Amino acid sequence: MNGFVPPPRLLMGPGPISCHPRVLQAMSQQLVGQFDPSMTACMNDTMALYRDVFRTRNHWTFMVDSTARGGIEAALVSLLKPGERVLVPVIGRFGLLLKEIAERVGAEVHCIDVEWGRVAEPGQVAAAIDRFKPQLVALVQGDTSTTMCQPLAEIGQLCREKGLLSYCDATASIGGNRFLTDEWGISAVSAGLQKCLGGPSGIAPITLNIDAVERINRRRHVEAGIRASHHRNAAGARIGSNYFDLAMIMDYWGEERLNHHTEATSMLYAARECARLWLEEGGDNVIARHQRAGAAMAAGLEAMGLRLFGDSHYRMNNVTGVYIPLGVDGEKVRAQLLQEFAIEIGTSFGPLHGRIWRIGTMGYNARIDAVLQTLACLEQVLLLNRVTVNAGDAVAAALDIFKS
Amino acid sequence: MNGFVPPPRLLMGPGPISCHPRVLQAMSQQLVGQFDPSMTACMNDTMALYRDVFRTRNHWTFMVDSTARGGIEAALVSLLKPGERVLVPVIGRFGLLLKEIAERVGAEVHCIDVEWGRVAEPGQVAAAIDRFKPQLVALVQGDTSTTMCQPLAEIGQLCREKGLLSYCDATASIGGNRFLTDEWGISAVSAGLQKCLGGPSGIAPITLNIDAVERINRRRHVEAGIRASHHRNAAGARIGSNYFDLAMIMDYWGEERLNHHTEATSMLYAARECARLWLEEGGDNVIARHQRAGAAMAAGLEAMGLRLFGDSHYRMNNVTGVYIPLGVDGEKVRAQLLQEFAIEIGTSFGPLHGRIWRIGTMGYNARIDAVLQTLACLEQVLLLNRVTVNAGDAVAAALDIFKS
Repeated sequence: MNGFVPPPRLLMGPGPISCHPRVLQAMSQQLVGQFDPSMTACMNDTMALYRDVFRTRNHWTFMVDSTARGGIEAALVSLLKPGERVLVPVIGRFGLLLKEIAERVGAEVHCIDVEWGRVAEPGQVAAAIDRFKPQLVALVQGDTSTTMCQPLAEIGQLCREKGLLSYCDATASIGGNRFLTDEWGISAVSAGLQKCLGGPSGIAPITLNIDAVERINRRRHVEAGIRASHHRNAAGARIGSNYFDLAMIMDYWGEERLNHHTEATSMLYAARECARLWLEEGGDNVIARHQRAGAAMAAGLEAMGLRLFGDSHYRMNNVTGVYIPLGVDGEKVRAQLLQEFAIEIGTSFGPLHGRIWRIGTMGYNARIDAVLQTLACLEQVLLLNRVTVNAGDAVAAALDIFKS
Repeated sequence: MNGFVPPPRLLMGPGPISCHPRVLQAMSQQLVGQFDPSMTACMNDTMALYRDVFRTRNHWTFMVDSTARGGIEAALVSLLKPGERVLVPVIGRFGLLLKEIAERVGAEVHCIDVEWGRVAEPGQVAAAIDRFKPQLVALVQGDTSTTMCQPLAEIGQLCREKGLLSYCDATASIGGNRFLTDEWGISAVSAGLQKCLGGPSGIAPITLNIDAVERINRRRHVEAGIRASHHRNAAGARIGSNYFDLAMIMDYWGEERLNHHTEATSMLYAARECARLWLEEGGDNVIARHQRAGAAMAAGLEAMGLRLFGDSHYRMNNVTGVYIPLGVDGEKVRAQLLQEFAIEIGTSFGPLHGRIWRIGTMGYNARIDAVLQTLACLEQVLLLNRVTVNAGDAVAAALDIFKS
């Protein structure tokens, strides 16, 4: 069997997207031992870098060695005891995922079901908190399934006022949309690299405030094989997962460096480089670049004559939902764009399946050339499929945004 | 903050070890979309390659996106329902880990506690099965904490005869010690790349036979956000973890490609290249290379005047335990070897802490030069620490093995 050679691809779906070349290079660096001073320094550097990305002073800002989905599970299984109550405002597929994971953890889950394409109102959340009295409110910032970006400032404040913990999955939004962990008072946030941070899937940055850490450490247990006489286990029952036990993972990232998993070093290198790139360009500049690229894509699609999906006040910067024109086979267009133009755009899930495409402009690909190529080639594929479009208008409209 | 530049290191501990350059290169390949035909072909290739590595015809041979520890948890949480009984022969720290994970899954765990440095006898296992009547026997092949390699052929046969499932953690042994999944009749096996396969930590190959798959699929559920009208959920209660639900992960790796996590593509590339290297050299040749390198390291250490740890009949090919000479500060020697000679050897856990070093000869580093450099430099560090050694004999003894 030959070595894998990826075909040329411009990934303009809802993620993963083409990886930044410097991140690819970082992953090809040689390994060091897991307790080597250079390795523990690399881990500490990465903690510091992600404090900036999450806009937090939380000491406990570190990595879970799994895809972003595992970061969500780590947060929920560590924060929630079986039987506890969690409130989940569901604005799309990833809200349903939070529900599903919380149920498997054994929590009692109450959902606020929001129509796909809209966001939850703070008033709804406040009312549900009063009725349901949850220990935790868990929600998604950017739900790529609907392209909506949930505002969090008021909900975070609400939770603080009522003395509840809050958790947010920021996988799809972080880095390309404003996320202010401390200012909004979110207790725990997890993420991934494969969206606006321009890296690959496979490691999940997470940050925990002191309330979350205290809650988790009430169930801290040290594994039998490595337990020393000075270790005291907490009174609370062990967390339901060993791999996602954030107390143990903190012990591994902490001063004692208690062995847990073997750190996925190549993914750590990727995470470090993603954050370094983000800070080098300047977080605000990166967010502005995503905003511009997303606006240009949206303007281009509209100028072409297509209709955008969802509440325009709350669209994510980095992914645009657009209705598939009537009578057009959405999957055929996607396949042609991929096979003949090497450009990937996204399909959709659940109630939106077959109704919208999702087009990403994120991370390394939140660039003028990526936007213009995508618009130019999508226009050609639509023309080949006998869709009436305003030929040339899309690129012109996008260029206007980039030049303004 | 500067880019991370790893210092020069020869990793001769119990793993991770220095990564094969071709695997590092594979990880720097650009990403493709997760349902791109080139990606699904890459996933299918990887399944085929690992059937060879595991020596199995099991269709369900695939990857869990976590470190090897997550592969263990995926197997146990998917195979065991709360309240079911599991028998764990414990020969070291990683046996204790199986116990710990199975307990968190809610299983009733019965252990056979074997003195560290020995292996479990099939007769003990048979007697415990008769007394305890488990649904599953779970054990570790190579437990790096003691450097012992558990024979599995008779235990596998025993489980088959009694109609039980068996699970083996082959993380530390696979690729450098014989592992015959089908011939031994092991129902489920999980592994990692970071030992004899010469890759990084971060993805866990797994193989399931038809009995294991049937058992898991009795609890198959499709997530609400992506469930279509033709999906039927199984009657059994959902598996306790979403991320490690092997039924869902099989649906992702199967023909329908039902979305679960976003595959950790760079780690998949690494896994594919590790297996390709193993098959290119020839599995038997790789195992023989590990055997030779391990024997040379052991002979060298003994010739130097040091005493080896554990039952010599059952030593792993890829890691050698050696007593720290009396009066010597083991950690000081390790630190000096790392800081001044850039060679890492391993410390140890639990009852062996401070008593033995563990020296790996595995994957890319199961090489003559790596063995000779390690022996030569360890000798020098011992001399600097005023330990009496038979100067020059270690390298000569190791060379004899390599040349025989």
